[in-house]
Amino acid sequence: MKKVVVIGGGTGNFVVLRGLKTYPVDLSAIVSMADDGGSTGILRDELGVLPPGDVRQCLVALSDSGRLMRSLMNYRFENGCLEGHNFGNIFLSALEKVTGSFERAVEEVGKILNIKGKVIPVTTNQVRLHMVLENGNLLKGEKEILLHNKPLTGFQSIFLEPFPTANTQALEEIKNADLIIFGPGGLYTSLIPNLLVEGVAKALRESKAKKVFILNLMNKKHQTPGFKASNYLHEVQRFLGKDVFDHIIINNATPPSELLNKYSDEAQFIENDLNSDLRVILTDLIDNEKPELSKSDVIAHTRALIRHDARKLADVIIKIVDKI
Amino acid sequence: MKKVVVIGGGTGNFVVLRGLKTYPVDLSAIVSMADDGGSTGILRDELGVLPPGDVRQCLVALSDSGRLMRSLMNYRFENGCLEGHNFGNIFLSALEKVTGSFERAVEEVGKILNIKGKVIPVTTNQVRLHMVLENGNLLKGEKEILLHNKPLTGFQSIFLEPFPTANTQALEEIKNADLIIFGPGGLYTSLIPNLLVEGVAKALRESKAKKVFILNLMNKKHQTPGFKASNYLHEVQRFLGKDVFDHIIINNATPPSELLNKYSDEAQFIENDLNSDLRVILTDLIDNEKPELSKSDVIAHTRALIRHDARKLADVIIKIVDKI
Repeated sequence: MKKVVVIGGGTGNFVVLRGLKTYPVDLSAIVSMADDGGSTGILRDELGVLPPGDVRQCLVALSDSGRLMRSLMNYRFENGCLEGHNFGNIFLSALEKVTGSFERAVEEVGKILNIKGKVIPVTTNQVRLHMVLENGNLLKGEKEILLHNKPLTGFQSIFLEPFPTANTQALEEIKNADLIIFGPGGLYTSLIPNLLVEGVAKALRESKAKKVFILNLMNKKHQTPGFKASNYLHEVQRFLGKDVFDHIIINNATPPSELLNKYSDEAQFIENDLNSDLRVILTDLIDNEKPELSKSDVIAHTRALIRHDARKLADVIIKIVDKI
Repeated sequence: MKKVVVIGGGTGNFVVLRGLKTYPVDLSAIVSMADDGGSTGILRDELGVLPPGDVRQCLVALSDSGRLMRSLMNYRFENGCLEGHNFGNIFLSALEKVTGSFERAVEEVGKILNIKGKVIPVTTNQVRLHMVLENGNLLKGEKEILLHNKPLTGFQSIFLEPFPTANTQALEEIKNADLIIFGPGGLYTSLIPNLLVEGVAKALRESKAKKVFILNLMNKKHQTPGFKASNYLHEVQRFLGKDVFDHIIINNATPPSELLNKYSDEAQFIENDLNSDLRVILTDLIDNEKPELSKSDVIAHTRALIRHDARKLADVIIKIVDKI
């Protein structure tokens, strides 16, 4: 079986993994550890644990247990002091406390969920994402970056504090992969944080795997205002140190107007300006279903409403796998 | 295999089940649903769930999974808004929310913990334990009864509100049992609440099973002040409607002074005044290990420090089973 490694964090990872799970490939998810918003942020602050949210989503995506266990992992409490917490986040945090190891916690939940593949935190250091803006102001934490209500373009620097060493298992997976999939996901909050971990960009540059960049569908008003495909590619290359991609997968279908209207001025559809780039695969990748957001999700308004369709994405990726 | 049914709630049940688990018997635990203190009470109040605490203890006692899963179920959070909550309680409550059924939640956790036996809530109605004192005052809830700081003797009535119907599976288990074990456990807070559920006392009177009453080790200052063995037997008979017991198991060893001193005037060792009763089995049942109590357990001071030894109890019970 071909080894496919998916790098990202959040819902983007989830969709790619869920789509690929049904195919005979050896799947690994490398997950950003910069999340500090919502339920995850509270657990980090109060319990001193590593961020469980993105890892939980990957575990659920790869789960081969029944629907009940998947619903349970994503269940969000709606009352009392547990309000807003995902059960799965609490599960991972309690296991981290009991075992003293986040990796062990991920492994144990993986067993219970009978996951097909591996979920690997990019680092097991306690890090926070920091961004120094053009005016010199410092944003501390992914949440502050997500909630910042002015354009971030022209920022001076983005880094993880303290500078983390990579999980050696993550570097091994990158080295031994046949195909590496980067994205989709929040450019500065889910994707690039993986490249800010010591050794990850180098491992990606040196890996002999085919490499695919899956572009997002929508821009975020303040983070990637008016970004076109070339801006995304340029930004990722800046942190990778090299243009490593064999393919760039870009959606070319229009989302249902019902979903598009919800965005109002908050975001715009990403324009493809890479038409002369022979690596570009243009196809319909839109999920036409409206996602369900929980009322007790305190950062629901920061989540994407227009999403990639897991099956459509997997179809495109598997065609690439078959040619390796 | 002989069918052994254990009736109670709390730590008493846990010790009997843990001891019997290693023997080839078909085990069922029928669990009181009157608990409303500590973590369980908060979850009941805030989420509207059924009380998970006693059921969790039984599930852990019967678990044949590794030590890790058992530690996880009993893990008590020590910080933030989760402080004082057992992970296992949150697990059961989240599953109840997701499935809409407490019984289903118990079944699912039972599968994950690979339990040997069954755990059956005595009722699945939402009930509160009420007690009308001698002076006419009403205590609402098990917690109020546990924390009441004057003697309860002479109380006018004790009842569950609203009057609950029994879980039919509990009645079936009682009917089909070869041996029924009643106790140990808080007399008014864990044992008698089972007899206050419609149909349970009748089922116990009519069951052809051998019946054993395991006496507590210590009195509780305000609940059972100065009670002797005969007082316990009399009180239980009052709610059973008949003396049904074939054996009464009573400890005759002295607890380590180190533990006894901790109790100060809070409780006294229960005296055996049933010496002429041929059903009485007198033996050493003391667990000489000091139990570990969590600092974040808000009702730790109400918990028993001197406990039955699981292995010693099981030895006595299995001798009875072998004669059936």
